[in-house]
Amino acid sequence: MQLLSKNDEKRDVFSNIKAIQPEEVSKALNRISSFIHKTPVISSSLLNEWLGHEVLFKAEMFQKTGAFKARGALNALLKLKENNILPEKVAAFSSGNHSQGVAWACKIMGVKATIFLPKTVSEVKKQATRSYGAEVVEVATRQEAEALSAKAMNDGITLIPPFDNDDVIAGQGTACLEALEEGLEPDAVFVPCGGGGLTSGTFLATRYKKLNSKVFAVEPEIANDAARSYKSGNIFRWQDQPNTICDGARTLAISERTFYYLKQTAGVIDVSEDNIIYWTQWITHLLKIECEPTSAMAMAGAFKWLKSQSKKSKILIILSGGNISEDSQRKIWEQSHLLNRPSMEGEK
Amino acid sequence: MQLLSKNDEKRDVFSNIKAIQPEEVSKALNRISSFIHKTPVISSSLLNEWLGHEVLFKAEMFQKTGAFKARGALNALLKLKENNILPEKVAAFSSGNHSQGVAWACKIMGVKATIFLPKTVSEVKKQATRSYGAEVVEVATRQEAEALSAKAMNDGITLIPPFDNDDVIAGQGTACLEALEEGLEPDAVFVPCGGGGLTSGTFLATRYKKLNSKVFAVEPEIANDAARSYKSGNIFRWQDQPNTICDGARTLAISERTFYYLKQTAGVIDVSEDNIIYWTQWITHLLKIECEPTSAMAMAGAFKWLKSQSKKSKILIILSGGNISEDSQRKIWEQSHLLNRPSMEGEK
Repeated sequence: MQLLSKNDEKRDVFSNIKAIQPEEVSKALNRISSFIHKTPVISSSLLNEWLGHEVLFKAEMFQKTGAFKARGALNALLKLKENNILPEKVAAFSSGNHSQGVAWACKIMGVKATIFLPKTVSEVKKQATRSYGAEVVEVATRQEAEALSAKAMNDGITLIPPFDNDDVIAGQGTACLEALEEGLEPDAVFVPCGGGGLTSGTFLATRYKKLNSKVFAVEPEIANDAARSYKSGNIFRWQDQPNTICDGARTLAISERTFYYLKQTAGVIDVSEDNIIYWTQWITHLLKIECEPTSAMAMAGAFKWLKSQSKKSKILIILSGGNISEDSQRKIWEQSHLLNRPSMEGEK
Repeated sequence: MQLLSKNDEKRDVFSNIKAIQPEEVSKALNRISSFIHKTPVISSSLLNEWLGHEVLFKAEMFQKTGAFKARGALNALLKLKENNILPEKVAAFSSGNHSQGVAWACKIMGVKATIFLPKTVSEVKKQATRSYGAEVVEVATRQEAEALSAKAMNDGITLIPPFDNDDVIAGQGTACLEALEEGLEPDAVFVPCGGGGLTSGTFLATRYKKLNSKVFAVEPEIANDAARSYKSGNIFRWQDQPNTICDGARTLAISERTFYYLKQTAGVIDVSEDNIIYWTQWITHLLKIECEPTSAMAMAGAFKWLKSQSKKSKILIILSGGNISEDSQRKIWEQSHLLNRPSMEGEK
């Protein structure tokens, strides 16, 4: 599903993946920066005091479309335009935020978009996708969405994949790069992992800045295909979409391309649904921002890692987005976690 | 309950209130600005497109303690210090956010604080008040909290009232003044109204800037004592705390002092609980911020006013805070409003 491959001919001897050069993330940032928001890096002094560490949050809920996905989609389209192959129409499939990213980027570029969305995608995300002018085709399952996208591609329609594409990956990496360009030198960066596009891009951003920052992908325990793949060395694929509250992590599997970068990260941390909801409540409460469970998941993973650290650490959490359906809100607030405050002695 | 009165001897002929000079708001801002956050003024291009008006939000959820109340409490304490009468201990009563404001300001100033809180105040707000080092005394009702505060005052303890105090009012007005200092010239400003401190301060801020901006107080229909008072010319007082979702608007009555300014505003708009929840959901969804129902109420009132306008208006909404208990979160998300998007033809 690679759209563009001319720019990079370096091949890894152990794989058929042509590695993306880290400077592609910087080029992507230059390409998209006049269209997107430079989102803030924020922190909670109370949380830092409680944990005894410095935790910084890159707040991509304030990005166009409410999620980082706008970055990758726009970078892919702008690159197509640079190469004079911008089509009149593109297609995409998604578990939610990518559809809005593509629809928004297509509106900017004057390109038509058809988006295949499984029924499980929240009505609110479907509505937002339509509001950018995209045609939404509802299908039964993620598998059907992927199959219809493949068919569209065979019919000559350009596909903007949610993660399995070099320009999408480079675009997603700009979120972390923007934060690092502010001079941050985190000991570790924690990234929510669905298909691995944001993880791959973030890894490349740290390499571009020549930092020794560890990069960790974080996943739900009940959707831990990346963790299983990382451990076994072979890509693990779900038969059906895992039913995690993190709709951004309901992908069936990572791809060969994203696995190539994932293998080079410091690891994959998986966290329970309960811990994800705990951190969703606490990030909302402390930072006063709307934080998707998929975003809060990265903090849940970071907390696990911090517990294993003996000295004070500075870490960066990529909060991927803030689009939450009413159903998810009800699930998030079903139980009360706010009287059990974060502490390194706690279990969350 | 006035703490300080030396600074202003001008009396209104129809009242025994000595009017606060508008420049007191500017002095208050100079006094507190190095301790507080300059909160952002934000907007949603989508909302503006849908409504055909320009709506700006002053986001006081990003203020210290998560609400504007930090401003008035700190201004009162700093003024006491200026006059060399800063006591070792102060007392306060509150329906929630004021207690955190006083506790935080006392921590900054090295002053002990005793806060009387009715049982109805959420455990999360009590916990936050204690976390700033204040002593929390739980009482059965708002009436009991007020009575115990009056007793403490008789015992010689300085009271920092939630609204019935010139320095508190001037401090609350700094939220609006900060926004106006950015060069905004709104046609109207909408303010959540509990005891009327924020409304009074906001009114004074617009007068200090010599703007013709209309100022509207907004209240819940089921707690519309200010609207009744405005209409009848006499202060209306509830026997018991009204059970609105807006905990910031559960005050029993406005005071003579705040009524003096309220009478000079353009009016009081009251809105239904359903509309308040509708706008809480939509502000959260569009702006990706944590917005208390008390804050969203101001937008519900603004929407009512906008429906009566024939030309495009620019308005400023003071979002007073973002401290929401889990119980309120459950109430907010009980029903789904996000598929019914805001429009001037809509009923919310």
